[in-house]
Amino acid sequence: MEGSLRQKAEGKVFARRRRAAMRRAAAEKVHAVLISRAEDVGYLSGFTGHDSFLLIGDGWVRLITDGRYGEQAEGQCPGVDVHVRKGGVADAVADGLRGRRVRRLGVQGDQVTLQFHKALASKLPAKRIQAMVGLLAPLRAVKDDGEVRAIRKAIRVAERAFRDVLALGGKAWIGATERDLAAELDYRMRRGGAEGPAFETIVAAGAHGSRPHHQSGSTRIRRGAPVLIDWGAKVAGYCSDLTRVVFLGRIPPRLADVYDVVRRAQAAGIAAARPGVSCGSVDAAARRVIDEAGYGERFVHNLGHGLGRQVHESPGLARKSKRRLRAGMVVTVEPGIYLPGLGGVRIEDDVLLTPGGTRRLTSLPRDAGAMVL
Amino acid sequence: MEGSLRQKAEGKVFARRRRAAMRRAAAEKVHAVLISRAEDVGYLSGFTGHDSFLLIGDGWVRLITDGRYGEQAEGQCPGVDVHVRKGGVADAVADGLRGRRVRRLGVQGDQVTLQFHKALASKLPAKRIQAMVGLLAPLRAVKDDGEVRAIRKAIRVAERAFRDVLALGGKAWIGATERDLAAELDYRMRRGGAEGPAFETIVAAGAHGSRPHHQSGSTRIRRGAPVLIDWGAKVAGYCSDLTRVVFLGRIPPRLADVYDVVRRAQAAGIAAARPGVSCGSVDAAARRVIDEAGYGERFVHNLGHGLGRQVHESPGLARKSKRRLRAGMVVTVEPGIYLPGLGGVRIEDDVLLTPGGTRRLTSLPRDAGAMVL
Repeated sequence: MEGSLRQKAEGKVFARRRRAAMRRAAAEKVHAVLISRAEDVGYLSGFTGHDSFLLIGDGWVRLITDGRYGEQAEGQCPGVDVHVRKGGVADAVADGLRGRRVRRLGVQGDQVTLQFHKALASKLPAKRIQAMVGLLAPLRAVKDDGEVRAIRKAIRVAERAFRDVLALGGKAWIGATERDLAAELDYRMRRGGAEGPAFETIVAAGAHGSRPHHQSGSTRIRRGAPVLIDWGAKVAGYCSDLTRVVFLGRIPPRLADVYDVVRRAQAAGIAAARPGVSCGSVDAAARRVIDEAGYGERFVHNLGHGLGRQVHESPGLARKSKRRLRAGMVVTVEPGIYLPGLGGVRIEDDVLLTPGGTRRLTSLPRDAGAMVL
Repeated sequence: MEGSLRQKAEGKVFARRRRAAMRRAAAEKVHAVLISRAEDVGYLSGFTGHDSFLLIGDGWVRLITDGRYGEQAEGQCPGVDVHVRKGGVADAVADGLRGRRVRRLGVQGDQVTLQFHKALASKLPAKRIQAMVGLLAPLRAVKDDGEVRAIRKAIRVAERAFRDVLALGGKAWIGATERDLAAELDYRMRRGGAEGPAFETIVAAGAHGSRPHHQSGSTRIRRGAPVLIDWGAKVAGYCSDLTRVVFLGRIPPRLADVYDVVRRAQAAGIAAARPGVSCGSVDAAARRVIDEAGYGERFVHNLGHGLGRQVHESPGLARKSKRRLRAGMVVTVEPGIYLPGLGGVRIEDDVLLTPGGTRRLTSLPRDAGAMVL
């Protein structure tokens, strides 16, 4: 009974999101949309399987899946017409549109391949297929309470795993490979309730820290060297994303200085963020601190990004972005300074935009002293 | 010195693959190809990063990447012109083609999105962009010795992890959740040298085994129930893929019968496989055993698939496929019988096609008795 009530409430959330999506589509004179990005299908229906498509129109919806997922889809998406296809996807789309007055079908232009488009066009000769980009991003950027709860949970799981790995102590860390530490973190996130890591966990030993997207390998952690760790958990479909630098035994003097700059830059970025201000101005507030310290050239990426079903989503806290922040957005704030040959420092936290400003959702300490093993 | 010799030898392998790709492209009157699938970029250059593109022509090659990967690309791809783009990918492609006589640019039709195609078309107005599908699949389907070694390693790592998890014993299994067991396997594969699991590890407890693509969840393992496990490791960019059913305490009589049928079906499939025979006939040989036992309707997928940089690649051991097997191909052979409400049995091994027939690369026991905890 309770389960069915909850499902009913969730079903209403998905239906509301579909209506909002169709309002945006209608503004472009599109009256049915084929959703093919898995995270978007999940956002609009609750379905968690793969290789499935959501066809939505004005007051109707059909999930197109295959035999592997039929049972699951029926269970996860009450109120959605589940169509288990036997033939190709294009045929199933044509079947879903049959008898409906849809002249233009919107498709996701950043998802649909040339091959799939060709197949679709051959089955829908009388209809116009319109590539749309960014239909859902503005909706997904503003999280509702349930989504914020899921992100908080993903953060809790990631932080607990990190604390447990820290608690292994310097002796366990020294001599371990980057990949060993990544495995320890991922394992603890899974055992802590995560579906898995939200992305490939980065463990960058020593000088590797200067590569923002280092792939963890067989390099061993050494005493005296910094270790940059960028990790997150996926829980109930939502991601967390954090970065800390751990020091083995001592903080190299040059990095202590850099660490202080990065920390102040992060604080300045967070202080600048509130509803109504542009994403670019938040980036600028953090970047100014790094520029003034003389490391401007070493901060080679944007300040942060939206966080939700995907680990990178709208809005980007990007240098020139004029997009305005809104309450309910969740963003990472992650300035970094990268010194080739020496290493890098990045501090990343997840922040919720509130009506009055921001609330930091992450709780791990940010001072370098707390990160010395 | 040794390192540079090895790199030189590897560089020759990649150059040979690029020449083979261009011969196939030339047959379609295409004289430059933009490769955008990460596994294909790796296959043709050795690069392991993301978000990068390989532009190849007759006797020339350029890797288009961004600031995050420039250093890595230079190290991994000697002999390849590495271009670190500042602007968009389409601009970088246009730059790479400047001054070259390329009238038609081939792109990967099953990779390139409508959005990217539009950006590309706006930068290459004088050139024709041709969507190609399956340019590399036939090349990648036949593995060279180095690739077979990598797959063998991926199998060894996956098997060792599985044996270690089995060795935890029934007491550790009973009461654990599906997700716990998946985490244990993944952890051991990583600690054993894998980059990670080759795909999302499936642990399906009891009746969940009847869903071929079950997503591991919080269901607990119970005494007397079967547990279907489908897992693999990725090592040096290559995948393994195995399935076993583990029984807790006893083999339910109905499943003992089914198990025997599946095992005989697998043996029949492997016995039928050799260079020159069609993929469809191998599927048929296994399917016949299941049909004759009366479970034909319960074997709901193809017999197997090629295995390499992707966990599913060419050739598919598919029902009606007329494609011929060739020596050097590596395929999974994985018949299954799925009984809704009761569970499922699938036995999956990885097999190399040799000039004289096949060699099983996997070594885990296949008899049900060995899988009782």
